[in-house]
Amino acid sequence: MTEKTETKDETVATSRRRFLTGSLAAGGAAMAAGLATAGPAAAQGESVITEIQDWNRYLGDGVVSQPYGVPSRYEANVVRRDVEWLTASRESSVSFTPLHELDGIITPNGLCFERHHAGIAEIEPSQHRLMINGLVDTPLVFTMQDLMRFPRENHVYFLECAANSGMEWRGAQLNGCQYTHGMVHCVVYTGVKLKHLLGEAGVKTNAKWILPEGADSAAMTRSIPLEKALDDCLVAFKMNGEALRPEQGYPVRLVVPGWEGNMWVKWLRRLEVGDQPWHQREETSKYTDLLANGKARRFTWVMDVKSVITSPSPQAPIRHGRGRAVISGLAWSGNGKIKRVDVSIDGGRNWTTARLDGPSLDKALHRFYLDIDWDGSELLLQSRAIDEAGFVQPTKNELRAARGENSIYHNNGIQTWYVKADGTVENVEVS
Amino acid sequence: MTEKTETKDETVATSRRRFLTGSLAAGGAAMAAGLATAGPAAAQGESVITEIQDWNRYLGDGVVSQPYGVPSRYEANVVRRDVEWLTASRESSVSFTPLHELDGIITPNGLCFERHHAGIAEIEPSQHRLMINGLVDTPLVFTMQDLMRFPRENHVYFLECAANSGMEWRGAQLNGCQYTHGMVHCVVYTGVKLKHLLGEAGVKTNAKWILPEGADSAAMTRSIPLEKALDDCLVAFKMNGEALRPEQGYPVRLVVPGWEGNMWVKWLRRLEVGDQPWHQREETSKYTDLLANGKARRFTWVMDVKSVITSPSPQAPIRHGRGRAVISGLAWSGNGKIKRVDVSIDGGRNWTTARLDGPSLDKALHRFYLDIDWDGSELLLQSRAIDEAGFVQPTKNELRAARGENSIYHNNGIQTWYVKADGTVENVEVS
Repeated sequence: MTEKTETKDETVATSRRRFLTGSLAAGGAAMAAGLATAGPAAAQGESVITEIQDWNRYLGDGVVSQPYGVPSRYEANVVRRDVEWLTASRESSVSFTPLHELDGIITPNGLCFERHHAGIAEIEPSQHRLMINGLVDTPLVFTMQDLMRFPRENHVYFLECAANSGMEWRGAQLNGCQYTHGMVHCVVYTGVKLKHLLGEAGVKTNAKWILPEGADSAAMTRSIPLEKALDDCLVAFKMNGEALRPEQGYPVRLVVPGWEGNMWVKWLRRLEVGDQPWHQREETSKYTDLLANGKARRFTWVMDVKSVITSPSPQAPIRHGRGRAVISGLAWSGNGKIKRVDVSIDGGRNWTTARLDGPSLDKALHRFYLDIDWDGSELLLQSRAIDEAGFVQPTKNELRAARGENSIYHNNGIQTWYVKADGTVENVEVS
Repeated sequence: MTEKTETKDETVATSRRRFLTGSLAAGGAAMAAGLATAGPAAAQGESVITEIQDWNRYLGDGVVSQPYGVPSRYEANVVRRDVEWLTASRESSVSFTPLHELDGIITPNGLCFERHHAGIAEIEPSQHRLMINGLVDTPLVFTMQDLMRFPRENHVYFLECAANSGMEWRGAQLNGCQYTHGMVHCVVYTGVKLKHLLGEAGVKTNAKWILPEGADSAAMTRSIPLEKALDDCLVAFKMNGEALRPEQGYPVRLVVPGWEGNMWVKWLRRLEVGDQPWHQREETSKYTDLLANGKARRFTWVMDVKSVITSPSPQAPIRHGRGRAVISGLAWSGNGKIKRVDVSIDGGRNWTTARLDGPSLDKALHRFYLDIDWDGSELLLQSRAIDEAGFVQPTKNELRAARGENSIYHNNGIQTWYVKADGTVENVEVS
């Protein structure tokens, strides 16, 4: 198997660096529509290799040398990483998707961020059951095989932890989008609409809520309005075509499109139907948003419109010098599709509409690009997404003005990357 | 890492079993639109487990226990497999995608079938170059970094080997769709349009063809008309969001949407521009279609409209007995999108339109479903795809009548699965 090296990046800068928007020289880079106008990015004499490489001389490994394939050993740094000081233990922690190394809108299963409350439940599927009880006509127990007999659907959805970018509320400056925005992934789910299973049990007329419960030792639970459950929720058993991964709820998880990740209960073993919310631990002590006045916002389910530039970024500096360069990033919204993404190279003074690429799907990641001709001067890179419901991604300061700095969850503020003349990139804030 | 067990399935039945369409009892199963009408697939007393499982008692593994995640150990049989007698060596062989275990339209990178002519070239990307030469104004050499500076695009495309289903021309009866149809996969590619690179070099007015060449020790080459090269071909460096896998051409391959897989040159190191085809080994001695009269069809690039039922199938029998059942399959066409898929349960006498599910994308796999209520009688399952250009998938006998039985390539004939009363499934032909 491929060697895995877990690089220990320095994750927090020792000092906070804030930028005044005015500190950038005007006209730092010229925007180019389509192909950049710089000379060819190729044909430099030094790029020609005259030596014949081994891979051109000798037979390589044959088929099925890896029955389940793995990445090239030259990609060993493309891995999930955690931040050790963040939580008391790795069983109650989070790892982050290496967004800066990825492209397009699909996250490979092996790189989807993890968030556990009691570690990874390693379930034997033949021993797993899903029960529906509470305010139903007929309580039911399903085997995995039973679930496979209902009409199936496939949907591409992003999943974002409510705490994604949470460390940024108070201006922490983590060295890379893997840490600032890596608690999001996007895959194709295959599953059964929850409404079919609830229909089979027969929901009573006074029912208003459901409580999904996990089979891990945290028995994770969240209250979800019945209206959402009957709308687009899926009981999913596959991701990106194959079985769910253990760390993503194998053999079955709930999919709650557009809503915060902790509601997508993994290792799903029970669905209780009730007439009011249950006020469980993970919707009272956690996953509520403490405001400056001491009150907490609760049941803040929808993940707001958001975006981030993934390259260049602190872990993905510009290494090629001046000339044509690709700015690339991701945008998403729990309200539906992304309508537009704007990019600024001068800390938000001027904006240019980016190119959205790939299929635009409801509540999925969207990939955007802006092709520029970089003159080598400093940039303050930002992206700002607008969704089809009309929501515009706010600045971090606008969010702080509205909610104070005690919040952990639901930070969808605009991110700024400071690109230096040597192409290295820092996480900064502009004010 | 997950244990990998390579199951040695029996891949060829010892006797040929042909069915007369009339041999099936009429009305073997009733079609149900939407939910099947049988009783609940759940709530049997025996499905309740009273024991508390370990995964509900103890903490599981923490985050980053696998920096690059792997499947559950209970999925160890979901792997690529080869057929050892098929080729002289594994370096010049093929492995097959386990289609019967997958769902949706995306193939996970670790399960994409392999086809090599000289094994897997394991390339160090910093030592790789792509050259454009021949009838151009300025011959160019690109590093991988150079390629990343051009405007990028993302597209979902199927890739099918021209020899997929090739063993079926003469009626071989392989035990499962992994072997009959598993030389196809479908992923999201990220890359640069070939036309941008050719534009940079400046194609001369008398140019009509290009010759892509691989950096493996087979130096794989195929002639491609310039018109296709300037249309939708991509020079791709990512699949499903991450770097190409070594067995799929890492660090860079050609993508030739809808055309036969051997033209999608892996480990791409050179693109020559010329005014006529080169008549290389792989377009004369191989990848031509020998007809009954001794003449050979050549330059048969487009992969024709095709489909297969992936479940139930010989490797994925019906294990749940009578009642509601899901028939699931894949359809694709090199001509564009799939317009419709019909399913027959009686060997082609009667047809029902299946439900197409998931995004319908140009030259991509399409997933179809038919939800039925199975009465336990024998079925002769078939699927028939129709593409947006109006092409209809033919029967195998129609193909043989037109081309004889000497062909290896381009068999897009209708596949038949014989579902027995006990739910097991065999590969058969109807006549």
